[in-house]
Amino acid sequence: MAVIRRLVLDVLKPHQPNALDFAVTLAEQGADYRVRLTVTEMDEKTESTVLVITGQNIEFEAILAAIKQMGASVHSIDEVEVCATGPAPE
Amino acid sequence: MAVIRRLVLDVLKPHQPNALDFAVTLAEQGADYRVRLTVTEMDEKTESTVLVITGQNIEFEAILAAIKQMGASVHSIDEVEVCATGPAPE
Amino acid sequence: MAVIRRLVLDVLKPHQPNALDFAVTLAEQGADYRVRLTVTEMDEKTESTVLVITGQNIEFEAILAAIKQMGASVHSIDEVEVCATGPAPE
Amino acid sequence: MAVIRRLVLDVLKPHQPNALDFAVTLAEQGADYRVRLTVTEMDEKTESTVLVITGQNIEFEAILAAIKQMGASVHSIDEVEVCATGPAPE
Amino acid sequence: MAVIRRLVLDVLKPHQPNALDFAVTLAEQGADYRVRLTVTEMDEKTESTVLVITGQNIEFEAILAAIKQMGASVHSIDEVEVCATGPAPE
Amino acid sequence: MAVIRRLVLDVLKPHQPNALDFAVTLAEQGADYRVRLTVTEMDEKTESTVLVITGQNIEFEAILAAIKQMGASVHSIDEVEVCATGPAPE
Amino acid sequence: MAVIRRLVLDVLKPHQPNALDFAVTLAEQGADYRVRLTVTEMDEKTESTVLVITGQNIEFEAILAAIKQMGASVHSIDEVEVCATGPAPE
Repeated sequence: MAVIRRLVLDVLKPHQPNALDFAVTLAEQGADYRVRLTVTEMDEKTESTVLVITGQNIEFEAILAAIKQMGASVHSIDEVEVCATGPAPE
Repeated sequence: MAVIRRLVLDVLKPHQPNALDFAVTLAEQGADYRVRLTVTEMDEKTESTVLVITGQNIEFEAILAAIKQMGASVHSIDEVEVCATGPAPE
Repeated sequence: MAVIRRLVLDVLKPHQPNALDFAVTLAEQGADYRVRLTVTEMDEKTESTVLVITGQNIEFEAILAAIKQMGASVHSIDEVEVCATGPAPE
Repeated sequence: MAVIRRLVLDVLKPHQPNALDFAVTLAEQGADYRVRLTVTEMDEKTESTVLVITGQNIEFEAILAAIKQMGASVHSIDEVEVCATGPAPE
Repeated sequence: MAVIRRLVLDVLKPHQPNALDFAVTLAEQGADYRVRLTVTEMDEKTESTVLVITGQNIEFEAILAAIKQMGASVHSIDEVEVCATGPAPE
Repeated sequence: MAVIRRLVLDVLKPHQPNALDFAVTLAEQGADYRVRLTVTEMDEKTESTVLVITGQNIEFEAILAAIKQMGASVHSIDEVEVCATGPAPE
Repeated sequence: MAVIRRLVLDVLKPHQPNALDFAVTLAEQGADYRVRLTVTEMDEKTESTVLVITGQNIEFEAILAAIKQMGASVHSIDEVEVCATGPAPE
C-alpha cells in the first residue's frame, strides 16, 4: 500500500470560479489538505495554473472530479510524492 | 470548510494613499493580518504592486472592498494558500 | 556490505499508467520507500521522468522489474547514494 | 489599528552627512530601530541608497522629517510590512 | 596527523559495472563511508562521473585501488577536506 | 543614541601590509571586532578590497584612522547597520 | 591582539604532491585546522587551487613555509577573517 503526500498538477481553468474559490473547493475535498494555486498564465478565457496539494493521504479521484466539476482540466501531473505504508508484496 | 492562509494579489493603485497608508488600511481589516506591499512598477498616475497578505483566516471580500474603496483594483489573484478545517463532504 | 539510500533515475514511461499510479506502484516495492516523480518532457507517446527514490535499504532489482512491468525503461542512473553498513573487507 | 514593522525606502541623499551618520540619525528616531543603508549608486553630488528600517512600531512621519532635515528625499516606498494590532473595525 | 573527511573525485568509468554497483563497491571500502555518484556525461563507452565520498577517516589508497580494479580511472581530485587530529609537528 | 553593528567599506590598499596584516590591525581596534577582508581586484600597485566589520559598537573614527595610517583610503561606505540604544529624542 | 579564523588563498601548485597529500600536509600544521582544497584549473605542469583553511588561531607563517616547501606559491590572499581577542590599544 502507498499514500499520496504531494501532488503538483498543471491545471487549465476558466476565469470563474476565481482562483480563490477554486482552491477552497479543492481544499474541502479532504480534512487536512493544503492547496497552493499559482496563476502562471492568463488569456481571454482561461488561466493556466500550477496546483500544489499536500496532505497525509490525498484522494486523487476526488480532486479530479472536483476539478472537472468546476469546468477545468488537468493538463498534466507534473510531480507526485508517495509513501509506502506497509510491507512490500511477497 | 476551508480557510485562506495566504493571498498574493497583483493590485494597481493610484499614488494616493501612499503604499504605507494603503498597506495599513488592509492590515486593519483583520485582527492578525500581516501585509507586505512591494511596488513593482510606477508610472505617472499609478503604481503596480504585489500584495502578500497572511493570516489565520483571511476574509477576501473585506480585502476586496477596502481595495476598491481606496481607488485601486485587483489585476489578478496570483497565488492562494488555503487549508481544510474539517472533514470532507460525504 | 552497503545499502542504497537514494536513487535518481531517468525513466522513459508510456502515458499509461499515469504518473501517479506509476509512482504508487514503485513505492509499494518497499516498506518505507518515498518516491518523487517529476515529468520533465512529454511527447505523443511517452513521458520523460526523473524518479527520486529514498529509503533505508532500496532493492534496485525489484524497482527495475516493476519499471519494466509497467512498460517503461531506465534511460540512466543519474545519481546514487549508498552507505557502508559494516567493516570493510580485510 | 496596525503598526509598521518594516520599511524599504529608495532615498536620494547628498554626500554629507555620510552614509554612517545618516543611518545613525534615522536609527535614533526610535528606541529599537535597526537601520540598514546600502549605497546603490553614486554620482558627483548625490548617492542613491536603499534604506531598510525595522522596528516594532516605526513612526513614518518622524523618519520622513529626519530624511528631509538631512537634505535628502524619499524617491519611493518600495516595500512595507504592517501588522494588525487589534480587532478589525465592525 | 590529519584524516580525510571528504573527497570529490572526477572519475571516468566504463558502463559496467553500472553506477549503482560501482558506488556500492566503493562504499564497502570503509565501515562508515557514504558515497554519492552523479553521472555528468555519457558517451558510447564511458560515463564521466563525480564522486563525493565522506567518512570519518577515508583511506584514499583503498578507494584508488577499487576504482582501478573496476576498470575506471581518476581524472582529477577536485576537492578534499582534511582535519588535523593532533598537535602540529615542533 | 545609536551604535554601529556592521560596516561594509570599499577600501583601496597598497600591496603592503598584506591583506592579512591589514585585517589584523583593523580587528585590533576593538575588543570584539570581526573583520572579513575580500580582495576584489588587484593591479600593479593597489588592491581593491571589500571590508566587512562587525561588532557590538564599532568606532568608525578609529577604523578610519587605522586605514589611513596603513596608506589605504575608504573609497565608499557601501553598507551600514546601526541600532538605536535608547529612547528617541523628544 | 587578533587571531586568524579563516583564510582563503589562491595557490599555484605542481601536480606532485597531489591535492590530497598537499591538503594533509597543511592540515598537519595545526592541532585543529580544517583544510578544503578545490582545484579550479589544471594545465600541463601546474594546478590552480583555492585553499580554505579554518581554525581557532591559524599561524600564517607556518602555512606559508609548508606551501613553499612543497614547491607551490601563494598567488593571492583572497579573503581573511580575523577576530580581536582583547581590549583595543589605548
